[in-house]
Amino acid sequence: MTLPRPEVDIGRVMAGLEALARASDAEPPAVTRIVYTVADLAGRDQIKGLCADTGLAVREDPIGNTFARWDGSRPDLPAVGTGSHIDAIPHSGRFDGTVGVLGALEAIRALKRDGFRPERSIELILFTAEEPTRFGIGCLGSRALCGALTPEAMTALRDNDGRSLDEVRRDAGFTGDLADVRLREGSYAAFVELHIEQGPILEREGIPIGIVTAIAAPAAIRVTWEGEGGHAGAVLMPGRRDALCAAAEAVLAVEAAALSHGGADSVATTGVCRVHPGAINSIPDRVSLEIDIRDTGLGTRDRVVAAVRRAIDEIAGRRGVRARVEPLNADPPAAMAATVREAIRSACDALGLASRPMISRAYHDALFMARLAPTGMIFIPCRGGISHRPEESSEPGEIARGIAVLAMALARLAGAEGARPGQSIGCR
Amino acid sequence: MTLPRPEVDIGRVMAGLEALARASDAEPPAVTRIVYTVADLAGRDQIKGLCADTGLAVREDPIGNTFARWDGSRPDLPAVGTGSHIDAIPHSGRFDGTVGVLGALEAIRALKRDGFRPERSIELILFTAEEPTRFGIGCLGSRALCGALTPEAMTALRDNDGRSLDEVRRDAGFTGDLADVRLREGSYAAFVELHIEQGPILEREGIPIGIVTAIAAPAAIRVTWEGEGGHAGAVLMPGRRDALCAAAEAVLAVEAAALSHGGADSVATTGVCRVHPGAINSIPDRVSLEIDIRDTGLGTRDRVVAAVRRAIDEIAGRRGVRARVEPLNADPPAAMAATVREAIRSACDALGLASRPMISRAYHDALFMARLAPTGMIFIPCRGGISHRPEESSEPGEIARGIAVLAMALARLAGAEGARPGQSIGCR
Repeated sequence: MTLPRPEVDIGRVMAGLEALARASDAEPPAVTRIVYTVADLAGRDQIKGLCADTGLAVREDPIGNTFARWDGSRPDLPAVGTGSHIDAIPHSGRFDGTVGVLGALEAIRALKRDGFRPERSIELILFTAEEPTRFGIGCLGSRALCGALTPEAMTALRDNDGRSLDEVRRDAGFTGDLADVRLREGSYAAFVELHIEQGPILEREGIPIGIVTAIAAPAAIRVTWEGEGGHAGAVLMPGRRDALCAAAEAVLAVEAAALSHGGADSVATTGVCRVHPGAINSIPDRVSLEIDIRDTGLGTRDRVVAAVRRAIDEIAGRRGVRARVEPLNADPPAAMAATVREAIRSACDALGLASRPMISRAYHDALFMARLAPTGMIFIPCRGGISHRPEESSEPGEIARGIAVLAMALARLAGAEGARPGQSIGCR
Repeated sequence: MTLPRPEVDIGRVMAGLEALARASDAEPPAVTRIVYTVADLAGRDQIKGLCADTGLAVREDPIGNTFARWDGSRPDLPAVGTGSHIDAIPHSGRFDGTVGVLGALEAIRALKRDGFRPERSIELILFTAEEPTRFGIGCLGSRALCGALTPEAMTALRDNDGRSLDEVRRDAGFTGDLADVRLREGSYAAFVELHIEQGPILEREGIPIGIVTAIAAPAAIRVTWEGEGGHAGAVLMPGRRDALCAAAEAVLAVEAAALSHGGADSVATTGVCRVHPGAINSIPDRVSLEIDIRDTGLGTRDRVVAAVRRAIDEIAGRRGVRARVEPLNADPPAAMAATVREAIRSACDALGLASRPMISRAYHDALFMARLAPTGMIFIPCRGGISHRPEESSEPGEIARGIAVLAMALARLAGAEGARPGQSIGCR
């Protein structure tokens, strides 16, 4: 089949990123876009408007996963999916996720402009709540799509204010039965996600495209410490059971566990520490920590998790402060499909772009889409490897190259109308 | 002069405490009553209503300090003050402060019922924001009354949401020039505050009344740690500058400083820890701690403060995380006046109640009133020494005994109408 040579209109993409950054609850250049907030809904409206302008048919599922379809000549065949998320953790940047949504849209527009007619439909997916900010669990939308998050588990989810997922998604306008979120297997022939690297490797090596081979295995736990409160002036030091002192030891134990019990790639982070009652003259009686542990190897990661849990038990026993440990998630790593990696590599070759295989140490919706369909990821460089901060940045040229590779990979995976059988890739 | 034998209507006081506990933003039995919130204003309305019912003339100053006056036969003389606060830190109890406000009101009612006619006026004061919850500074109202907090310093104060004191007090209905808050010296001949002990001594020793000899010297500092954020999955451990790990070391250093560098009475507490951005998959880039250090001796306390500051510098240097230290306050201890202590002791003797002199390790508005007038404090027992928690509690009988002592001490300090000169106590 003749591959298209899509021309990317990068100005339009950058304008879209700029507009999307304004749908935010933070002072620019920082972006805060928490799922189901007014900012999130405003961002979704922008994307849905652009999809409609592009002639795509838009539908939303009961939790707000949004699908924009370009019908192929064989709409009966499983579609090729692409997309990412637009939610952003507090005070972060404008490229994480959004490049994979607006980039996918531009890839579709570029293929259309080029006159390409796909055999399989191509579907852009905007996933709900890839970030764990509100519900403490990452990849909420894609997890539910592949059935890794059951309707019962969704019903049990509460946000940081104790409101249920069911309540807040309804307030945001998403209704319908949670049981209808899960997609049947075979819904997609393939899935490709374009994303900034969120690490320094591509920039350092001067390579424009990373082809992800596997997504690292994240585990997240919440530890709630319950000690004894009291007046900070009146309760003497001996016999105190200060929940924050216990939690502080745990924060340091998390860091030490990654350094001593993990491998070179092990990372462990305490990103959340909530103190109750949180008054300067009151001994903390309850402190909740949220801990994120990752590694490219499942065994190494679980060794770090075990070391953290041992340390928590030891601290709790020694200080007389109760520790309740809740596993938030512990997902296995996902290997990316050879067929999709090959489609990406061919696109790079056709465009004359250098590429390298690489691990993703951040997780992505592709981690869960890999359970539904052969899946791959395209990484592009970002400045200093920085992400989840306002300074997060990729150059227009870098984004344009990523979109061009995505467009060609989608074309190869979807196949051209009238091409010989077998020229499109993926399971039927 | 013949001392009155006031009969305390403790049922009315307990009903007042019960009603006041409902002006709260927490689930009962917990109480949260932050200054200038709807709950605080509702509590103030209750107190003002009771004062008006008692025939007291009520006035409010520009920041909401509230004065309810029972005119004596010589209204030209400096009055005798009594009172406390009704604001309550998050998720605390119903007795801290409130016993000294509703108790003072009942002391006045009991003296009136007994037919007592004071020579000096007796004035109940409800102090604004004794707790540091909202503005990070304790005893806001009494500090301003005695001039320890200047109008300029008040203008600079911001609450946790960054709103100015000036804005929020106006929203709460308190207007007028901040320069008018300060009282001239000689406004009061004496000041007495009734308060729960917030410690275990009186209960343990079975003594109903504590006569405070000195109020311990609190020092408070805020430390803001600024490290480097990033994606929790993508930034490897070596070279991280995690602000929460630095802060965790500081929390433990605060505890260790009180244990190693202080005396037996030294206490040091980190009650507040705010993490930015506060997302599970983001390395904390900014963490702010609020630390409270107290001792009965100024020298010992300052030794602990110095040890904490040395530890902060060491942690910051070793971890490459910047630490900004702001002293929030460092007040000297206050000795209670011999005249007022003697008035309290005589009242105990007359009522046949055992008493003991004691230090207050918690601070109180009396700490600042001592700069304006000879000042004393009456302590009553509280269950298990517990305070700043929902379980905080004193028995009706204990409260009644405290109010009876307060009433007799006020009578002695104010003098009876027509008594021989010199029988009332205090400076004119």
